Amino acid sequence: MTSHHPVNGLDDVVHQRVRLGILAVLAESTRADFTFLRDTLDVTDGNLARHLQTLEGAGFVEIEKRFERRRPRTWVRATAAGRDAFAKEIAALEALIRRVQ
Amino acid sequence: MTSHHPVNGLDDVVHQRVRLGILAVLAESTRADFTFLRDTLDVTDGNLARHLQTLEGAGFVEIEKRFERRRPRTWVRATAAGRDAFAKEIAALEALIRRVQ
Repeated sequence: MTSHHPVNGLDDVVHQRVRLGILAVLAESTRADFTFLRDTLDVTDGNLARHLQTLEGAGFVEIEKRFERRRPRTWVRATAAGRDAFAKEIAALEALIRRVQ
Repeated sequence: MTSHHPVNGLDDVVHQRVRLGILAVLAESTRADFTFLRDTLDVTDGNLARHLQTLEGAGFVEIEKRFERRRPRTWVRATAAGRDAFAKEIAALEALIRRVQ
């Protein structure tokens, strides 16, 4: 039984609510900017920055800071590893839902 | 957009991986004992105890310690509020999965 419960297939890096949200938004578009992520996920700048850092550290997102019209803008993209990790999380959640229904 | 992303419907108390696992196990049976939860979710005693305390503090589980055959045994049950919170989490996860597929 031990390793077979579906929650054991969940990776804390991806499962955490805000990080799951970031990867979900990035599953719908090639990139998203910091402000859009912050407003969509309803988090503070600091909170979003911290979770982006965790995802970047795991190799799941790439962060690009640049100037557009003389203003700083931060773009975030999912890496191939990030898309894989997100797909695995969704599969584990589906297994969990099937099990409890 | 802000409040409409499905991850905004996830409650951190319930969403956290180990706590989600506890409530998932309790969705399948009226009660579970500490050892069974620990082995099923593959966590340490201390980790499980901490997450049970969080769920108990939120009113989502009831914990009963008693002696059976002169040995201490800890039983855990989901409360009605715990079952409701788990059902809401599952519904939010289903909405998230529908959205990204």
